Amino acid sequence: MQTRSVSLCHGGQLGYYRHASSSTGTEMGFAVFVPPQAAQAPVPALYFLAGLTCTEETFVIKAGAQRLAAELGLMLVACDTSPRGLNLPGDAESWDFGVGAGFYLDATQAPWAAHYRMSQYINVELPALIESQFPARGDRRGLFGHSMGGHGALVNALRHPQRWQSVSAFAPIANPVAVPWGEKAFSRYLGEDRSAWVQWDACELMRQQPYPGPILVDQGLADQFLASQLHPDALQAAADASGQALTLRQHAGYDHSYWFIQSFIDDHLRHHASILLAR
Amino acid sequence: MQTRSVSLCHGGQLGYYRHASSSTGTEMGFAVFVPPQAAQAPVPALYFLAGLTCTEETFVIKAGAQRLAAELGLMLVACDTSPRGLNLPGDAESWDFGVGAGFYLDATQAPWAAHYRMSQYINVELPALIESQFPARGDRRGLFGHSMGGHGALVNALRHPQRWQSVSAFAPIANPVAVPWGEKAFSRYLGEDRSAWVQWDACELMRQQPYPGPILVDQGLADQFLASQLHPDALQAAADASGQALTLRQHAGYDHSYWFIQSFIDDHLRHHASILLAR
Repeated sequence: MQTRSVSLCHGGQLGYYRHASSSTGTEMGFAVFVPPQAAQAPVPALYFLAGLTCTEETFVIKAGAQRLAAELGLMLVACDTSPRGLNLPGDAESWDFGVGAGFYLDATQAPWAAHYRMSQYINVELPALIESQFPARGDRRGLFGHSMGGHGALVNALRHPQRWQSVSAFAPIANPVAVPWGEKAFSRYLGEDRSAWVQWDACELMRQQPYPGPILVDQGLADQFLASQLHPDALQAAADASGQALTLRQHAGYDHSYWFIQSFIDDHLRHHASILLAR
Repeated sequence: MQTRSVSLCHGGQLGYYRHASSSTGTEMGFAVFVPPQAAQAPVPALYFLAGLTCTEETFVIKAGAQRLAAELGLMLVACDTSPRGLNLPGDAESWDFGVGAGFYLDATQAPWAAHYRMSQYINVELPALIESQFPARGDRRGLFGHSMGGHGALVNALRHPQRWQSVSAFAPIANPVAVPWGEKAFSRYLGEDRSAWVQWDACELMRQQPYPGPILVDQGLADQFLASQLHPDALQAAADASGQALTLRQHAGYDHSYWFIQSFIDDHLRHHASILLAR
């Protein structure tokens, strides 16, 4: 692991790092905020998955999360949104597929399957690295994200509830099998057989088996992608059908940006803290 | 005035705007955060001046100021660091002079004097525009900034205390006539005659006439520019000599970045609020 920079921030440490990833076969960058409480004992870590086009820098710069994380004693971890530097055919032709658009799944189709293994990366490789290099607890992890990363948080927590003790999302792509972003990505990463897609769709997974804890989702009602790509109504219907404990808050006037995220970030940190810091 | 974008944020409005500036003879961009309290009555406005290489976007994205500004009822205004798009000879050769490096003064030397009039812009033109287009009080304005912008906040408040009812700074270039950044910029914007420089040096101005209110300055002790460019000790000496009320806080471990700024931004907002919101 290579340290790019470390700065003191709210009494904790904000750092950017790089490492050679076995999951993706590339170098991957990530950011970590270590709260001051970690000087005494390992703390729970909360992982953020960003949306299309973002990097590991976006969340820590734009979301305003460090202030309350330092107060509560939560580590923050932010990773990149895909492998980079591969120059696979078609990986840079559009902003919603390939580079910056890994969708936090494990691809099964060539040429993506060899490198686009973001689910393996965030569920296994990155936590193992974090817990070996930083004072993070291995038994208390939270997962949240925005848009494509909200999808990533929901599906990976639903698939691996034993790995993620808490989960929440901002404006997630809640039902990707039914919207253009998901159809485009899944058809290329997973193939044309839609039966493989349902294992990466939060609504489908939740109907099969609810997540064993409460889920918090915030959605802005002035979000430019709400009707075409996000479908929170489908998530609510899946929760109702399966008995999932879901708090879906819909906020008049808020759009899809980090101005929206920063407005409600404190509520998400408190949601995770109430679970991850419970005795 | 042209609106680039407006988003709801912490119950207020965060917008990016452009306008044709008579001070600089160029288009200038700025950002405004209007807190929710402004729906009832005009509120005080707090202007932030950013450092070398920054734009009007830097502060609102990186400082984490909107949360508490929305709670206190302070408008935030952030402007650019220089005119842009002029292509004057030598204006893009270095990051510490010309584009992105206006130093918040009014240049007197050709070719800069016709356009590099950032002091006129921030003292007169921008407040007039803000107070005509947004619900901002004309009798309660605060000024603060970082590095080159900390210099800008101190010198412009010292020169025009009737315009600025409160002032503070993060890691200001406190004594520019004595450091490389200031010598480079002042010699070209103001000419080789150093007697003209002292009217744009916070230490020199403070010795002539203290600012009629308390000044808050935060400085990180791991700041990579502390010894070579910033000289807070000179500011403290000037305050001691003139009776200036100065709170200079020096923080072990903090560097020159916005991670430092965001760590102490709340204290600055409360400093300004205690004056601007006093009855």
